[in-house]
Amino acid sequence: MKHVFATLAITTLGLCAAPGSAQPPQPDWRSQGIIYLDHSLNARLHTVPIQAVHLGDGFWANRRWVTTEHSLPTMLELLEEHGVMDNFRRLSGRKNVARRGPVYTDSDAYKWIEAASWALASNETTDADKQKLRQQIESMISDIAAAQEPSGYLNTYYVGDKAHLRFTELVRSHEDYCLGHLIQAAIAYYRATGSRALLDPAIKFADYVVDNFGPTKRPFMTGHPELEMALVELYRTTGDSKYLEFVRYLFSGVERDRMKWKESDVRYTFSGRQFTTRTEFEGHAVRALYAVSGATDYFAETGDPAYKRTLDLLWTDLTMRKMYITGGVGSRSSGESFGEPYELPSEQAYAETCAAVANVMWNFRMLAVTGDAKYGDVLEKALYNGANSGMSLSGTMYCYRNPLATNGEKLRSPWYDTTCCPPNIERLFESLPGYFYAISRDGVFVNLYHNSELNWHLEDGTGLKLAQTTSYPWSGDIHLTVTPDHASDFTVYLRWPSWAPAASVQVNGQPFSTANSHPGSFIAISRMWNKGDAISLSLTMQPTPMVSNPRVADTYGRIALQRGPLVYALEQIDQGGSPLYDLFYRVNSTPAIEQRKDLLGGVVILKVNGAAAEKSLGDEPLYEPWAVAAARGKRPAMLTFIPYYAMGNREPTPMEVWVPASRAEGQYLPPSATAERRFGPSGTR
Amino acid sequence: MKHVFATLAITTLGLCAAPGSAQPPQPDWRSQGIIYLDHSLNARLHTVPIQAVHLGDGFWANRRWVTTEHSLPTMLELLEEHGVMDNFRRLSGRKNVARRGPVYTDSDAYKWIEAASWALASNETTDADKQKLRQQIESMISDIAAAQEPSGYLNTYYVGDKAHLRFTELVRSHEDYCLGHLIQAAIAYYRATGSRALLDPAIKFADYVVDNFGPTKRPFMTGHPELEMALVELYRTTGDSKYLEFVRYLFSGVERDRMKWKESDVRYTFSGRQFTTRTEFEGHAVRALYAVSGATDYFAETGDPAYKRTLDLLWTDLTMRKMYITGGVGSRSSGESFGEPYELPSEQAYAETCAAVANVMWNFRMLAVTGDAKYGDVLEKALYNGANSGMSLSGTMYCYRNPLATNGEKLRSPWYDTTCCPPNIERLFESLPGYFYAISRDGVFVNLYHNSELNWHLEDGTGLKLAQTTSYPWSGDIHLTVTPDHASDFTVYLRWPSWAPAASVQVNGQPFSTANSHPGSFIAISRMWNKGDAISLSLTMQPTPMVSNPRVADTYGRIALQRGPLVYALEQIDQGGSPLYDLFYRVNSTPAIEQRKDLLGGVVILKVNGAAAEKSLGDEPLYEPWAVAAARGKRPAMLTFIPYYAMGNREPTPMEVWVPASRAEGQYLPPSATAERRFGPSGTR
Repeated sequence: MKHVFATLAITTLGLCAAPGSAQPPQPDWRSQGIIYLDHSLNARLHTVPIQAVHLGDGFWANRRWVTTEHSLPTMLELLEEHGVMDNFRRLSGRKNVARRGPVYTDSDAYKWIEAASWALASNETTDADKQKLRQQIESMISDIAAAQEPSGYLNTYYVGDKAHLRFTELVRSHEDYCLGHLIQAAIAYYRATGSRALLDPAIKFADYVVDNFGPTKRPFMTGHPELEMALVELYRTTGDSKYLEFVRYLFSGVERDRMKWKESDVRYTFSGRQFTTRTEFEGHAVRALYAVSGATDYFAETGDPAYKRTLDLLWTDLTMRKMYITGGVGSRSSGESFGEPYELPSEQAYAETCAAVANVMWNFRMLAVTGDAKYGDVLEKALYNGANSGMSLSGTMYCYRNPLATNGEKLRSPWYDTTCCPPNIERLFESLPGYFYAISRDGVFVNLYHNSELNWHLEDGTGLKLAQTTSYPWSGDIHLTVTPDHASDFTVYLRWPSWAPAASVQVNGQPFSTANSHPGSFIAISRMWNKGDAISLSLTMQPTPMVSNPRVADTYGRIALQRGPLVYALEQIDQGGSPLYDLFYRVNSTPAIEQRKDLLGGVVILKVNGAAAEKSLGDEPLYEPWAVAAARGKRPAMLTFIPYYAMGNREPTPMEVWVPASRAEGQYLPPSATAERRFGPSGTR
Repeated sequence: MKHVFATLAITTLGLCAAPGSAQPPQPDWRSQGIIYLDHSLNARLHTVPIQAVHLGDGFWANRRWVTTEHSLPTMLELLEEHGVMDNFRRLSGRKNVARRGPVYTDSDAYKWIEAASWALASNETTDADKQKLRQQIESMISDIAAAQEPSGYLNTYYVGDKAHLRFTELVRSHEDYCLGHLIQAAIAYYRATGSRALLDPAIKFADYVVDNFGPTKRPFMTGHPELEMALVELYRTTGDSKYLEFVRYLFSGVERDRMKWKESDVRYTFSGRQFTTRTEFEGHAVRALYAVSGATDYFAETGDPAYKRTLDLLWTDLTMRKMYITGGVGSRSSGESFGEPYELPSEQAYAETCAAVANVMWNFRMLAVTGDAKYGDVLEKALYNGANSGMSLSGTMYCYRNPLATNGEKLRSPWYDTTCCPPNIERLFESLPGYFYAISRDGVFVNLYHNSELNWHLEDGTGLKLAQTTSYPWSGDIHLTVTPDHASDFTVYLRWPSWAPAASVQVNGQPFSTANSHPGSFIAISRMWNKGDAISLSLTMQPTPMVSNPRVADTYGRIALQRGPLVYALEQIDQGGSPLYDLFYRVNSTPAIEQRKDLLGGVVILKVNGAAAEKSLGDEPLYEPWAVAAARGKRPAMLTFIPYYAMGNREPTPMEVWVPASRAEGQYLPPSATAERRFGPSGTR
């Protein structure tokens, strides 16, 4: 079957065979991961289905439990309260009400269904919850399917007197985006249950688009990329290459003239021109990151090298110039957009939750395509910090923006008029079991660390159990037990995160050399594995003061504290009397680690001997001679850091990630003897 | 006459007398300064007319010469080319064309007339130029007056099928703003020539507004403050208190309900609510600064203490939290607006030229009201730097934005679709002679330093000549000769700028103690002055590394170099091979001063032994552990600074005001022994 698929994809793409060719046999829904890569010739890693992973107690189990028990039910209530489902019911006559909400509300229902579906697939969801969720989903699907027009068209906004505008104002209409989320929800429900109840309507709408639009038909370009990912996944699910063909068309940008897009539209949407001509991120951050995610999916199927080159260029642009240390993305509120290179303001950061979620999705795809651990680093960073902060510990309050500093404004809300972020973080959390492990031709990859068990098989069909015990991210010690059905020669790949300067490995109690690896790579342990073989991995997890590239004006001279994958932050509420803005970080202090089970759902906090301005900076001039400022006194002050993701879970309080390094203790000290020597006594070259 | 005026103002305001009461005799136009304060009971300083000041060679003489010879003629051509004057001609039938340009083009013509009028008033303008300018102005006035409707209404946009919208959409319409500039232009032309050719149409339109709008008539609020200043000046010019009354109405904000303004309108326009309830700057920077300028004028006439309290609060907010070191204002492009407190990004700075001009105008008014030198400091800072940068050395290219760092983008243009800034900086430069000196009840104030001669009289009528010789701002040595008509007891006030740590004064060769003064105050020399008495003032003018309050995230850990009133900047073009972003400032270097008559019209440049990253920062990671970054090497590099105002006058090139302080040489050095002692060996409190 694998070969049939691969050949088909290449042939179809190579020859531009007419769409609608005979459909190949469909693979078993039970084998499909959150994205399904078993037949993707250009993916080094193949995902495992959520059902194959048991998630044990710990960090993400808590977050997923809260999501299932609190987020999904309260969000469904709010969707009902704000008329999102009624918008469907009015079309079928089940409810006689006016349409409510902005143009894209349908997508919120779809994202909720996707999240609930991944919960259904999970081994940790209780039977009672599964029964309730399935009932809720089926009821929603019934309302959605009943709203679908005979043609297949399905959107609650472009109806009635707006019907004539369908697909004519895609820069703002979100019809493409809603369709994308419909497809993703349908696939998730299918992969969780085998039910085609939503998949068939989704295919019907997808076919409506694919059949009616194209170079020789009506023009189409995504105004909010997202459909690309969804259509590639639909191709992977159905095997029908017409969806992949359409994605090529979407990325071609050939319809710019026919659709009369302005240059600003092309910039804002990150669409509308040949994808492979892009060299930098710009415009709307979520649009751009969904576009590159879809392009990575497209590359996984086609292997078009121009796509890989473009993706590499863009990844470098993002991670070298345009990403927050939290993995958050999007520097400007205006246009929810990227800024200039190195424009990464903390307090004004937009860093929309959806963009961090998209960053996780993109890096997961890049990791799958390449097997390169550097993508795992960014995935982990965005997941634990910039995305994770998007949902409160209670699971019922959300951030839309995730700035890296606040003046005490309230960031979290249970609902937003544009409520894209809440169900997006929910679908990410519920899909998490699908991220931890992957299978390659030569073995198994451990992407993320958590108490868990993988129960799946190697590529050759050999059954494999992999059990993981750890208190990660609070500790860097991880124990694995490898249990193949029978003694077998393969490789276990362990991700060595770039934040860990050292890693030590033992296999069955014997040291295993990591000399061939380095931080930011996978440690490859190739051997004949027997049932019950034990691996111990120990990652050095010290609190680490981080700096940014000095080109980031906003964070120059400042320190962010990180420990393991977690970025830390100061909240005013923990700092005693001093206003946050009076506090300074002393880089040579040694942070103390303190476990606090009572605090913020159980966290490790960090304490640092810092300094506080003797006279509050709120009363100091805006500008003054360096000599005057350097003479100002500071007194010792203890800084108490909490993990960034846990910010904003108590009363509104000022917060900051980047703490100014104390200048009284060095920043402006006279040049050291070494420096003097380098410059020479006269100070001239 | 003085008492008549003062009493009238107070009485009228106190009793709310009906407008249109009998007009008092009008003062001689020859005695009126750029604002006319002789009868303003609450102004400590009284301005002197432009005609009373001779400007000798030097810094501002050059800028004014360029303005008269190059800016005014080329700008007039461009106004014609873009249809600004045709917009008037079409209304009178003199030209059969369509209206062109945005809603506010009339104001650009008015600002040009104001600039040209001040040029007419100047002793330095040649007779030939005066003749040409007068002809041009008269011709424009003829076109303008011919476009005025019999009712008095005069605006080229709200005509024809837009006439029914008059004064109904003031948040965007700029009708109020255009009227304000019409009045200011009319007054300038009147004060330059005695001609009422434009004053009478301006009064007619002002009367139309004042007669038809008000609490019991149609509602009015300024959507772009500016009219407030103009109407107070019209009151000062005509003596008719109805204009002052109307300003009180404008500042009352009582029409918010009748005009259905949203909260966002009130924020954006800095209008629409009782002025004295404001506590901080917000919204559109130019609107806000024109509003406070008008409120200061209003206070000068009425003495309402609530206004003074509000103005003091706002001035503190501006200078402690929201102003660039250049005197520029406006942190955000979005809404051309103020940001949060301490939100002062360099590269993203908006810092519109108009806002810096407004800052000069406001601080001149505050200085006049109080006689407090701190306003002179801000006036000087904005004038020499953030406003001055708005016009190229050639006088034909302008900045709209004046950021404090660029990546090499082209900042200057001869024209903008919204071309408010070019004629605004022209009117400021042409009016400059009116800023240098002022008369108080007890003597004479020297606000600014420049080769010049004041030929005026003290309050008691005693004729006074004051001759000033200096090469300021390149040197801090100033010589003055005081020549009263007859020996006379009065005070000469010399501004001791806050940038000068030391000042020494000699009178007729004898030391004069400055013990009662301090930087940022006026040195008061009270004595019996005889003809030809000589004063020498020597201000210490050393290159001074400046820092910002650490609360400004964008400039923390960075140095701006200042010498005298001038802020300096690095341009890439002067730095040899290293990219600007690789350069660091060593705070303990001693900047070298170099006179360069050949460069940028003649400047003093500053050279500093700095450092450059050994490996370019463009290739370094975005985030890394402090310990890794601190180990990176730097090599010596010479930094060459030019005055900020002269930036962008050669090829487009990266520029920055705030240079990162080198961290290799101290920023992250181990704590000094002193610091260790303070913290104790254990690092705990």
